[in-house]
Amino acid sequence: MEPIIVKYLVKPKLKDPVLIEGLPGVGNVGKISAEYLKEKLNAKPFVELYSKYLPPQVLMQNDGTISLVKNELCYYKNPNGRDLIILVGDYQGMSSEGQYELSYKVLEIVKEYGAKLIFTLGGYGTGQLVDKPRVFGAATHKELVEEMKKYGVYFSPTDPAGGIVGAAGLLLGLGSVVFDMKGVCLMGETSGYFSDPKSSYEILKIVKEYFNLELDLEEIALRSQEITEITTQLKEEQKSEERKEDLGYIG
Amino acid sequence: MEPIIVKYLVKPKLKDPVLIEGLPGVGNVGKISAEYLKEKLNAKPFVELYSKYLPPQVLMQNDGTISLVKNELCYYKNPNGRDLIILVGDYQGMSSEGQYELSYKVLEIVKEYGAKLIFTLGGYGTGQLVDKPRVFGAATHKELVEEMKKYGVYFSPTDPAGGIVGAAGLLLGLGSVVFDMKGVCLMGETSGYFSDPKSSYEILKIVKEYFNLELDLEEIALRSQEITEITTQLKEEQKSEERKEDLGYIG
Amino acid sequence: MEPIIVKYLVKPKLKDPVLIEGLPGVGNVGKISAEYLKEKLNAKPFVELYSKYLPPQVLMQNDGTISLVKNELCYYKNPNGRDLIILVGDYQGMSSEGQYELSYKVLEIVKEYGAKLIFTLGGYGTGQLVDKPRVFGAATHKELVEEMKKYGVYFSPTDPAGGIVGAAGLLLGLGSVVFDMKGVCLMGETSGYFSDPKSSYEILKIVKEYFNLELDLEEIALRSQEITEITTQLKEEQKSEERKEDLGYIG
Amino acid sequence: MEPIIVKYLVKPKLKDPVLIEGLPGVGNVGKISAEYLKEKLNAKPFVELYSKYLPPQVLMQNDGTISLVKNELCYYKNPNGRDLIILVGDYQGMSSEGQYELSYKVLEIVKEYGAKLIFTLGGYGTGQLVDKPRVFGAATHKELVEEMKKYGVYFSPTDPAGGIVGAAGLLLGLGSVVFDMKGVCLMGETSGYFSDPKSSYEILKIVKEYFNLELDLEEIALRSQEITEITTQLKEEQKSEERKEDLGYIG
Repeated sequence: MEPIIVKYLVKPKLKDPVLIEGLPGVGNVGKISAEYLKEKLNAKPFVELYSKYLPPQVLMQNDGTISLVKNELCYYKNPNGRDLIILVGDYQGMSSEGQYELSYKVLEIVKEYGAKLIFTLGGYGTGQLVDKPRVFGAATHKELVEEMKKYGVYFSPTDPAGGIVGAAGLLLGLGSVVFDMKGVCLMGETSGYFSDPKSSYEILKIVKEYFNLELDLEEIALRSQEITEITTQLKEEQKSEERKEDLGYIG
Repeated sequence: MEPIIVKYLVKPKLKDPVLIEGLPGVGNVGKISAEYLKEKLNAKPFVELYSKYLPPQVLMQNDGTISLVKNELCYYKNPNGRDLIILVGDYQGMSSEGQYELSYKVLEIVKEYGAKLIFTLGGYGTGQLVDKPRVFGAATHKELVEEMKKYGVYFSPTDPAGGIVGAAGLLLGLGSVVFDMKGVCLMGETSGYFSDPKSSYEILKIVKEYFNLELDLEEIALRSQEITEITTQLKEEQKSEERKEDLGYIG
Repeated sequence: MEPIIVKYLVKPKLKDPVLIEGLPGVGNVGKISAEYLKEKLNAKPFVELYSKYLPPQVLMQNDGTISLVKNELCYYKNPNGRDLIILVGDYQGMSSEGQYELSYKVLEIVKEYGAKLIFTLGGYGTGQLVDKPRVFGAATHKELVEEMKKYGVYFSPTDPAGGIVGAAGLLLGLGSVVFDMKGVCLMGETSGYFSDPKSSYEILKIVKEYFNLELDLEEIALRSQEITEITTQLKEEQKSEERKEDLGYIG
Repeated sequence: MEPIIVKYLVKPKLKDPVLIEGLPGVGNVGKISAEYLKEKLNAKPFVELYSKYLPPQVLMQNDGTISLVKNELCYYKNPNGRDLIILVGDYQGMSSEGQYELSYKVLEIVKEYGAKLIFTLGGYGTGQLVDKPRVFGAATHKELVEEMKKYGVYFSPTDPAGGIVGAAGLLLGLGSVVFDMKGVCLMGETSGYFSDPKSSYEILKIVKEYFNLELDLEEIALRSQEITEITTQLKEEQKSEERKEDLGYIG
């Protein structure tokens, strides 16, 4: 079989489109963000990618039917700016080689549609509860670093330590090295302990502003508020535990 | 070498055949079912598949000869309905990629023989002893879901949780996405702790009825009865243990 | 790179050659046997196989030079019968796929030289010290089973349990399925705890007789004797330990 | 995608160049050595290698930009002798197959530039603190062994035990078997517990002398001195600990 099966559903005409990626990862921040964009902008699937690099699995739907695990490109015609190609999916590639192959194939496809810019969305796991998640950035070119700073994105010489693993990194890396594209990775701070829409909310505010999107953020703001409440409660419990321990030492 | 070596033994003419898969898996429910069909219907092997995706191993026969691990397609000319192509085998593919490649190859072959329908058989592991195994279903198309419900197949929005892994899932997924086929997966409830012909029995009753087969179920009914006896005994022991524990607390 | 690099050193003419394989495995019984044959018969290397399926490693020689890990075919022109092609090597393939590919390639090569028969040599690990190692057999064809019984080879319906893994199995399996060859696997009983020339000795006696070889077995008989002494001593110590334990209970 | 993407930056003309490899490994001795050569000789990158055999990762730069993990060939035009091609990189291949493929590709490239000689640099981990690291050697040809002895390289029948794993071994192995090249591996003794410029220093002195390089060793000598101080201090502490223990026994 073809290692990656590309199934075109429709062939839209797109105007200077940007690729926006959000696949499963730390805190599912990227996945939540990209699927929110897809849903709220009513973006239409136009390419499905099936692959032996994905898990050998079908997923159950509520109606009793199954769906083979896939990645999917959806398009959104933006009346106020450049069009979007949104990459969502059930899984990332299972092996290093698979991750390279899948990212490369996505870049080949969006290149055909004229994409020259890439935004990859993800989480930056801190291992502790975060009150106000910052959005960290990384970019392929120095001028993009400067531009994104204006949108409140943090660029730190020490964060994210080491590097960016998976599609969020590879799309930018291969995009710039092989496909002459530019790109930005936005990483929302997250504990990494649970799916974190609060971190996604911070990312989406930047994406909305940058691309001038008619994007309703109300629902994700509500989900973000729920995370704030859970986090606050957890922190209270932690403090309470610590007080008990302190008293224990005194008593 | 060819990653998958396809050895045709004979080239039968088949009438609107259905592919029925039963490879090793949870409780070996699929394997037991498919091998029972093969044996009782006296289905004839016509394609052997050897592959580097299978374990590097030969199996010992009782007569001192060896047999390279393989998958095998057998055909059965059904006087009362559509013909069957039964997929049996020693192992499933060892890697994700191998599982995709093997399923794809099987679909290519049965497509040549005109197959448009697939039944995959397997176990649904519950992790606890089952009195009366239900048969859960999943299907590629909504109308098949409705049709199978008439045969007593359960379609639940929560079971099987997550998805269907391996050939039972991939044949349906790739079959519908790439080969324009339809299909059903039948999963018999099983504890998953041992090979479970009782679960297979429930599946085979449905398969027999659906395809109007002259299939003698007596032997599998007997083996099923044995499982019932073992299960009953195990449950008695469990209860007895619990009673002792309860008495212990009282005393 | 070519997945397997085949380097021909010379191209000998061989008379109805048999392939004899002995690669690293349980108790290194096969490797010791094949290397003993190579050395004592002064068999000449004529094909070297290098491969990415072998470990990424060079081995140090005593003179400070290095040698890339490889498999090697050596030929022996037998004045009293069919010629031999002996397969020796530093390692077996590291992955399942690698094992298939390497075995397939070896079969392709020896087929060119007219080989129709294969003997694979290995150990059969019993997990306990063996006084007089039996040689178990497996064969591709029923008539070979009968023939080898005359040479004292044991064919048991329960041993080796499960099957034969690696080149010793694959060469026979692929050889018979794809290359129309016949073959025998000889497995010497061994504890599997150490390199076991005693087990190899039992195999070599059969190989010598079967192929009518002018093979001096004196050295391996001596090494076998050493193993007998070590085994006897270990058994004495075990018994002594057990006696102490028994006394302990009494006292 | 191409499994290895070769990006030529410039195409220099080189005079009888030698390939000098230093990739990550034990004590990072090879990597430190090769990167020191690159920096101090102001060697220019001319080939970048990106590959699915490397980790699926981009690395963060201090300025907020990212760089896809890679291997890199740099050239140095040596006024006093043969030119150098220096191989540096972020990682070695992640799988055995990847290591073979990457080494093979590098050899193909440097062969085009007329390279007939290879020096691979690495660490030889001893697992204990080393006062004066020796440089062990291994070579493809006996005459190179003799030649390197004159430069103070140790050739021991027992060290390095087993063999040389990874690019340092494969470049020599494949280089001699497939590309008709000669080569030497220089391994500096190192504890292996930390990045060890002291071991690199010993290697670089030999490389400088052998290739008649205008190489300023002052900085690495200083870093080496720091390691000496740390080592001395650690040894003092060890001795002090032992004395305490001794006293403990006496008291």
